[in-house]
Amino acid sequence: MTQLSHSRRLRRTPFSKGVEDFGVKSYTVYNHMLLPTVFRSVEEDYHHLKQAVQIWDVSCERQIELRGPDASRLMQHLTPRDLRSMQVGQCYYVPIVDETGGMLNDPVAVKLADDRWWISIADSDLLYWVKGLAYGERLDVLVDEPDVSPLAVQGPLAEDLMADVFGDAVRNIRFFRFGTFDFQGRNLVIARSGYSKQGGFEIYVEGSDIGMPLWNALVEAGKSMDVHAGCPNLIERIEGGLLSYGNDMTDDNTPHECGLGKFCNTQAAIGCVGRDALLRVAKEGPVQQLRPISIEGDAVSVCKEFWPLLSDGKRVGRISSAAWSPDFNTNVAIGMVRMTNWDAGTKLHVETPDGLRTATVQPKFWI
Amino acid sequence: MTQLSHSRRLRRTPFSKGVEDFGVKSYTVYNHMLLPTVFRSVEEDYHHLKQAVQIWDVSCERQIELRGPDASRLMQHLTPRDLRSMQVGQCYYVPIVDETGGMLNDPVAVKLADDRWWISIADSDLLYWVKGLAYGERLDVLVDEPDVSPLAVQGPLAEDLMADVFGDAVRNIRFFRFGTFDFQGRNLVIARSGYSKQGGFEIYVEGSDIGMPLWNALVEAGKSMDVHAGCPNLIERIEGGLLSYGNDMTDDNTPHECGLGKFCNTQAAIGCVGRDALLRVAKEGPVQQLRPISIEGDAVSVCKEFWPLLSDGKRVGRISSAAWSPDFNTNVAIGMVRMTNWDAGTKLHVETPDGLRTATVQPKFWI
Repeated sequence: MTQLSHSRRLRRTPFSKGVEDFGVKSYTVYNHMLLPTVFRSVEEDYHHLKQAVQIWDVSCERQIELRGPDASRLMQHLTPRDLRSMQVGQCYYVPIVDETGGMLNDPVAVKLADDRWWISIADSDLLYWVKGLAYGERLDVLVDEPDVSPLAVQGPLAEDLMADVFGDAVRNIRFFRFGTFDFQGRNLVIARSGYSKQGGFEIYVEGSDIGMPLWNALVEAGKSMDVHAGCPNLIERIEGGLLSYGNDMTDDNTPHECGLGKFCNTQAAIGCVGRDALLRVAKEGPVQQLRPISIEGDAVSVCKEFWPLLSDGKRVGRISSAAWSPDFNTNVAIGMVRMTNWDAGTKLHVETPDGLRTATVQPKFWI
Repeated sequence: MTQLSHSRRLRRTPFSKGVEDFGVKSYTVYNHMLLPTVFRSVEEDYHHLKQAVQIWDVSCERQIELRGPDASRLMQHLTPRDLRSMQVGQCYYVPIVDETGGMLNDPVAVKLADDRWWISIADSDLLYWVKGLAYGERLDVLVDEPDVSPLAVQGPLAEDLMADVFGDAVRNIRFFRFGTFDFQGRNLVIARSGYSKQGGFEIYVEGSDIGMPLWNALVEAGKSMDVHAGCPNLIERIEGGLLSYGNDMTDDNTPHECGLGKFCNTQAAIGCVGRDALLRVAKEGPVQQLRPISIEGDAVSVCKEFWPLLSDGKRVGRISSAAWSPDFNTNVAIGMVRMTNWDAGTKLHVETPDGLRTATVQPKFWI
């Protein structure tokens, strides 16, 4: 690790003070904003996430708001996922692609009303794409980034903590659904979602001024539950097969290559940019795809750049994320593998900074 | 300062190895890429930049390439600067605005041919805006990010070093012009430009594979000139009035507010997105504008978020960048100030993490 130089350009969040009070040790930068990565240690944070409850400052999941008569039309132009049957109150994971079917982002779409949506984005300025399209197509829609900063509550005790602060009704929120709940006189959107497999919620905190009051209320209510500040955990997210845009995929990749074909109803997604390209891909199938991969030997280094995957010395893919898993006692990884070598059980070699290692394509993620 | 967690998402560059060999101490993240910020210390780097010559890994100034019959038309749609008289071989600093005249980026446009441009971008995914516009407007143009990584050579001895490696012809390159020069059989675009006021060049390194060979050639040739790895220097760039997108301005601001009105020929920029809004702004003039501002007292902290500027206790602006200047023996800063208080010599107060300080609007930057 090296030092991070701070500046106004790396935006602080409504919860930065809370994060610092918990002694954040390390950050990454995500959507021009600070995202904590370590509090106690990656392993300690990992164990705690699986046992208790954590409050995550994920303000960096910036929202794009679409408002106006053409909002739903524009939303369908953005994604090959069929949105026709989506109800107000639902969240959909939606691949967003360019005209060639290359992934531009993999956000969650939140349908607030027929003419109002939020798109909760991964790490790219999707706002620019959406604004450019809306302008170019002369659509009747307002597109901007509202003052909304998600705060996630994740872990097995998340529901108890949330019920303490927002009342028992939060227990009724179903997965990838949301409701609105009162906090100090404000209506906040709360969804059952989050970037872990441990269960939990994301609170769309509208209005920076209530950021710290809410943070403090959660910390106070969670004292008996061993609550702690946390953050998306590298080990847990790889175990769970949660992809990271910019790490595991870029605009070079189609949704099908990323294993997101099940979110593409391209035939039905009338008006979707990239539809022609994706129909072709859906017909032929991808020639490479993301796979869970285990890497033998002791803990590997941090994956800072692609590690080549080799078969008989020939390059057949690359690892993009890797970490030592204490619970599964192996290195867990995500990698793009060519179809010639992607069957479960296939043995490969991977060039890591720690030397050449044996790797095995897994039948499924570690969940 | 805190730690930075590395990952594939924070892209390394063709020169990362060279940067590490020089003992880079700290990074920022810029266009999803690592940008060094400190080698020896910000002050030591500053003095050295003004005396010798530095090699800067500014790969994060990613290029957007426009190619095709509509390339020039699209380029003019992007900016209120009149491009009609721009020649092949010229570089233009071009504000890029959205439909309301809000700044999306402040890049340098490089005209390679009538139907081929590079846009050398500041810190936002301008590629998405350009692609969205091109698609929405059905323009006949290819838009992508090529494998081009700028390497800057900056400082008073830059010309001597460049002449050593590329031959004396580089001395003939005029400011904001470029030529093509051979390095190991490759033609590289070299412009007289860069994000400092000390003079120098930017080499548009096309092809990552020649990154380290070129880096090494420059280091070798520069030994007698006390060459060192460097990077954009916070102190020097504030002294010189070089703005930083995301720090000093965002999409909330018009070019006129940023003092970039001289780069707006909005009347002539037919087709420019945001033309209507900017014509209105040009007529009325901005109500706030960026100004050089000195801050009294000893060295201030790093500016991580806006510092309010006050007059009689009332907020009249904010500081976005600040640093202690050893050469001018004061804190130098950039801030947005309302027209009621923007005249040179106006005394204000500024709320810094180091307490309330007296600040003075300056007649010009420190150059």
